[in-house]
Amino acid sequence: MKGFAMLGIGRTGWIEKKDPICGPMDAICRPIALAPCTSDVHTVWSGALGERSDLILGHEAIGEVVEVGSLVRDFKPGDRVIVPAITPDWNSLEAQGGYQMHSGGMLAGWKFSNFKDGVFAELFHVNDADGNLAHLPDGMDPVAACMLADMVPTGFHGVELADVQFGDRVVVVGIGPVGLMAVAAAALRGASYLYAVGSRPNCIQVAKEFGATDIVNYREGDIVEQIMEKTHGKGVDRVVIAGGDVNTFEQAIDMLKPGGKIGNINYLGEGDYIKIPRVEWGCGMAHKTITGGLMPGGRLRMEKLAALMETGRIDPSKLVTHRFEGLESVEPALMLMKDKPRDLIKPVVTIKW
Amino acid sequence: MKGFAMLGIGRTGWIEKKDPICGPMDAICRPIALAPCTSDVHTVWSGALGERSDLILGHEAIGEVVEVGSLVRDFKPGDRVIVPAITPDWNSLEAQGGYQMHSGGMLAGWKFSNFKDGVFAELFHVNDADGNLAHLPDGMDPVAACMLADMVPTGFHGVELADVQFGDRVVVVGIGPVGLMAVAAAALRGASYLYAVGSRPNCIQVAKEFGATDIVNYREGDIVEQIMEKTHGKGVDRVVIAGGDVNTFEQAIDMLKPGGKIGNINYLGEGDYIKIPRVEWGCGMAHKTITGGLMPGGRLRMEKLAALMETGRIDPSKLVTHRFEGLESVEPALMLMKDKPRDLIKPVVTIKW
Amino acid sequence: MKGFAMLGIGRTGWIEKKDPICGPMDAICRPIALAPCTSDVHTVWSGALGERSDLILGHEAIGEVVEVGSLVRDFKPGDRVIVPAITPDWNSLEAQGGYQMHSGGMLAGWKFSNFKDGVFAELFHVNDADGNLAHLPDGMDPVAACMLADMVPTGFHGVELADVQFGDRVVVVGIGPVGLMAVAAAALRGASYLYAVGSRPNCIQVAKEFGATDIVNYREGDIVEQIMEKTHGKGVDRVVIAGGDVNTFEQAIDMLKPGGKIGNINYLGEGDYIKIPRVEWGCGMAHKTITGGLMPGGRLRMEKLAALMETGRIDPSKLVTHRFEGLESVEPALMLMKDKPRDLIKPVVTIKW
Amino acid sequence: MKGFAMLGIGRTGWIEKKDPICGPMDAICRPIALAPCTSDVHTVWSGALGERSDLILGHEAIGEVVEVGSLVRDFKPGDRVIVPAITPDWNSLEAQGGYQMHSGGMLAGWKFSNFKDGVFAELFHVNDADGNLAHLPDGMDPVAACMLADMVPTGFHGVELADVQFGDRVVVVGIGPVGLMAVAAAALRGASYLYAVGSRPNCIQVAKEFGATDIVNYREGDIVEQIMEKTHGKGVDRVVIAGGDVNTFEQAIDMLKPGGKIGNINYLGEGDYIKIPRVEWGCGMAHKTITGGLMPGGRLRMEKLAALMETGRIDPSKLVTHRFEGLESVEPALMLMKDKPRDLIKPVVTIKW
Repeated sequence: MKGFAMLGIGRTGWIEKKDPICGPMDAICRPIALAPCTSDVHTVWSGALGERSDLILGHEAIGEVVEVGSLVRDFKPGDRVIVPAITPDWNSLEAQGGYQMHSGGMLAGWKFSNFKDGVFAELFHVNDADGNLAHLPDGMDPVAACMLADMVPTGFHGVELADVQFGDRVVVVGIGPVGLMAVAAAALRGASYLYAVGSRPNCIQVAKEFGATDIVNYREGDIVEQIMEKTHGKGVDRVVIAGGDVNTFEQAIDMLKPGGKIGNINYLGEGDYIKIPRVEWGCGMAHKTITGGLMPGGRLRMEKLAALMETGRIDPSKLVTHRFEGLESVEPALMLMKDKPRDLIKPVVTIKW
Repeated sequence: MKGFAMLGIGRTGWIEKKDPICGPMDAICRPIALAPCTSDVHTVWSGALGERSDLILGHEAIGEVVEVGSLVRDFKPGDRVIVPAITPDWNSLEAQGGYQMHSGGMLAGWKFSNFKDGVFAELFHVNDADGNLAHLPDGMDPVAACMLADMVPTGFHGVELADVQFGDRVVVVGIGPVGLMAVAAAALRGASYLYAVGSRPNCIQVAKEFGATDIVNYREGDIVEQIMEKTHGKGVDRVVIAGGDVNTFEQAIDMLKPGGKIGNINYLGEGDYIKIPRVEWGCGMAHKTITGGLMPGGRLRMEKLAALMETGRIDPSKLVTHRFEGLESVEPALMLMKDKPRDLIKPVVTIKW
Repeated sequence: MKGFAMLGIGRTGWIEKKDPICGPMDAICRPIALAPCTSDVHTVWSGALGERSDLILGHEAIGEVVEVGSLVRDFKPGDRVIVPAITPDWNSLEAQGGYQMHSGGMLAGWKFSNFKDGVFAELFHVNDADGNLAHLPDGMDPVAACMLADMVPTGFHGVELADVQFGDRVVVVGIGPVGLMAVAAAALRGASYLYAVGSRPNCIQVAKEFGATDIVNYREGDIVEQIMEKTHGKGVDRVVIAGGDVNTFEQAIDMLKPGGKIGNINYLGEGDYIKIPRVEWGCGMAHKTITGGLMPGGRLRMEKLAALMETGRIDPSKLVTHRFEGLESVEPALMLMKDKPRDLIKPVVTIKW
Repeated sequence: MKGFAMLGIGRTGWIEKKDPICGPMDAICRPIALAPCTSDVHTVWSGALGERSDLILGHEAIGEVVEVGSLVRDFKPGDRVIVPAITPDWNSLEAQGGYQMHSGGMLAGWKFSNFKDGVFAELFHVNDADGNLAHLPDGMDPVAACMLADMVPTGFHGVELADVQFGDRVVVVGIGPVGLMAVAAAALRGASYLYAVGSRPNCIQVAKEFGATDIVNYREGDIVEQIMEKTHGKGVDRVVIAGGDVNTFEQAIDMLKPGGKIGNINYLGEGDYIKIPRVEWGCGMAHKTITGGLMPGGRLRMEKLAALMETGRIDPSKLVTHRFEGLESVEPALMLMKDKPRDLIKPVVTIKW
């Protein structure tokens, strides 16, 4: 089979590989919608995961099942399925402890384009089909549904980590596709004032449509000052970090009330340390909680988030600014993510078989 | 001063009382918007609280401060304020334990028209003004804001008790004004499929506007059967009980998945027992959690819920179907609640001074 | 192979069955320590699970692995293992939602002697060996460890369900083996005053050794009155129900403070309804939460509870009042559970191969 | 009245001040047992709170009520009381939100020897007597009870912040008096393996008596390496930081499993930043949660912790290595805390009136 791969750090290309083999609990799928992710860009051009050779890229897909293992009960060839970016080993100790995304080790629930070949190929392998696939609901557009693989669950997890409560004032730092879904999730979780930090016009437009009440543009001044002014010096209850870098946490602490919480969903690719300012962190005594985590994957999560689309609570199709056709288009789509033109939020490639 | 009172079980009338006295932490207010509550009806005509004589009724008010005690810092005469139905003693052991609505004893955070005179009077007394009043935001309509005293926080608490999570399937039983706010809250907390159980046309209309995806009419068949059919036999994740009676819990258990939760906000006025069906409750082993509770009151709660109105997340003005003017109109407004015409959701009385 | 089975309601006996077959994720074990459970008695003589014929009984075992499937990584023939009574399907939607004991349906994580043959046999089958077995720590007595299969995790779960916090006053109703482990768990979770309700002298003795501060004997008067007297009329924060029947919940509600919680771990075999007294439940408004649930099973749970034994935090060997040798002794051991002599807490059978 | 005060940074001495005035909700007490705290040392000699002049020191006391305000119901002159170091304003927005220790601003629930005169005086003032005092139980030694003011609740809060669960492997870094109480709390919360990091022999002795299973001495090698070796490379579930400095967090992250939690109760007096190592924090994705907070104060907390002493669950008298008599002895007792001789854990001064 053919796949689009990382050949080495900084190099990509099409390669031929043997078809994947289906274990007793697994499925083999072919893609019908694919999206490249910023993390594919980091993997290839920043070497974020280290050196990899001939690793097929991609972890956001809607697929069609072509084969299932002997122990699979709920899926059969021909089924159209949502494939989450994170496909845990559900019987691992970590999953039993509630942290399925770390099944087998820190971040090891993330398999596609990390430990095994990704979805940018004619065929791809899904471990534990019954536990990790979800049926694509009838009538749901695969293009919009493709956002369920990573963008929606990651953005939503930021809001879960920050533990947003009714009426909370919430900041979302970064309004790329993940940050925008965090904005939607914060609104859907009951945030009142919702401050979205970003600068690109079409992202700002979608942030407002998703429920942001205020836009804070870092080009117009220090974001902490802007937030403190908007909150009459009181600060906010919650911060979701979906952009920036290791230095963003200092700002987040500065704008947070005592008892506040920070949920990080930004993959921090550079820098030795996240630095927490001692005095603003109350000398360790302020109950300002800091956490961050990889999205939960698996079937139940996909089904629940798909139900939010079915019932019109969220519309992730608004993220999709560029559309391509044909498997070969994953290459230009990925290059688009790399070049990040100002009007880009997210590209999707559809494939007909 | 003049007030509209319960004279005894089944009897109401206008009475004269001495003006309330302001303690060092307290405030005296006069009402600018008032709403009668179903519980006022129960108090008078069902004797739900037992015999009371010359007790001024009412616990839903927007007011204007006329006097404050010497220790009050944040309020002054002339301030327009939201007055929660529940005004806890914040230093009580119960409040310290997180259950301020039970400060001083079970349900004893509820004072107005229960342990002391209510708000249907020329003047009323508020204990702990700094802890229990909230400033009415500039530009907010007192008529809509009056729903913050009881309808909004009670409905929202049902959803907190049921612990609704992203994508959950949720049933709200009863779509009177409290149930409707529970519908709004469930949608705002991230419910996907949201089944509202009720039959009155204008309530159904508002339920849909507040986010119900399905209406389940008990006149059209058993509600458990209807819900099970809509969920393909799987049942729901959460049930908020905002109507019905002691028998409603059996239905709620029947339609709930293992691991599901029931949050009750219906004041159960009659019946010796709530009955939980043994087999459907998994012989005590199903992790179907049952709880219920009086709304949290106090200032922070009012501020957070008011912020949801300011930011357009909720519009409780849709509950207000009947409007009256003048303090003397609390009498016909209460009678309307008692008679419950088919087009009634909630009446509000405004008063100019 | 030979096994001791339920032949039909009210009838038991030894039968021959084909050896169990090992799937790719499974293990086949032979028992080295076995304990009969009160629920085996209910299954046979009360027909609690309905009619069953030729179903091998037993779900409490320490075993030795004799065969593993091709996908099993962490266990091999000859390993000595703790076998939990509950062996979930970890990739089920229920497990993904945090309720693994209901994997595949309400209570369906309970398989041994329920949906498939139990452990009272020369060989028994364990689904998902990597997910459901735990290595027996070196040097741990299989007799004591056998309590980890059901008695310890069930008792501990009661305390988790009741959500005991530092300094709480806690009642444990029932001090059979499960209730005794709930006493130990409540003490180990930080209960202060810990009221154990029971009457049998050797159970009382162990309850005190496990941390009970007061014994409440129902033969000496109404237990609610006794508890209210001991708490100066204030009641308790938490109640764990590990004995009694459907009527016990009324007492539990009566003795509970507002904001209190009830955790049930008693399998309720009879009665149509659990009855919650309306007035004492605050007319639905008291925040007295009622829940109950089957123990969580699986490997992580076994490892964590075994670690509590290894570090001397708990000593479940104190439950074992009667010891037998040889597989054939499961019959007299079960009869002992049925007859419940006054000095019995728990019998264990050891088997040498 | 006479009190022992900070005259300025680095200077202490006895001063005369006017007697404190009792507001309507307040109490005036005289001390019967007092303990100096490391934070008194930091306040004076490190200037941790900035410049203060003539501020009476001390915040750990058992007292006798000499006067109460007109609104106080539950205390009267002559009552012996536990006085928590943290005395919140219970009606503040922060307390209503669950963070009473930050009532009125970050850390502002801490009043004694911070915003107002402390307890090292002939008389001291307690705000909100009903909300903040607790009766000293009959027969409880004031010397041991004096540990309830700060050492016990602070140590216990570390374990709450780290959210210790049954069977968790827990590290406590630092075994001064607060760390020792964290060890006791972790054992009482259900930790299995409990690693206490420290080096002083008498602290090690008490740590073992309080439930530590292993002592990790930083003088014998890198503590991360020692912990990883003891846990077979897997790391621990929870870390309580009760000693060290801003650099301790890096070690804590290194030894923590994904999904692990850090609870800090060490007042961090120096350094610009707490540094979180990016890679070991899973590039922001590891679900390693970091929090820290001032102890919860107030009456309920004191009552619950006192109940743990009454029932023998904890014995904080083991912390008291040095005893003094007479108010004038607070000076040598404080100097002892400053000089920290190797055999010191905690001094207590008793006063007879």
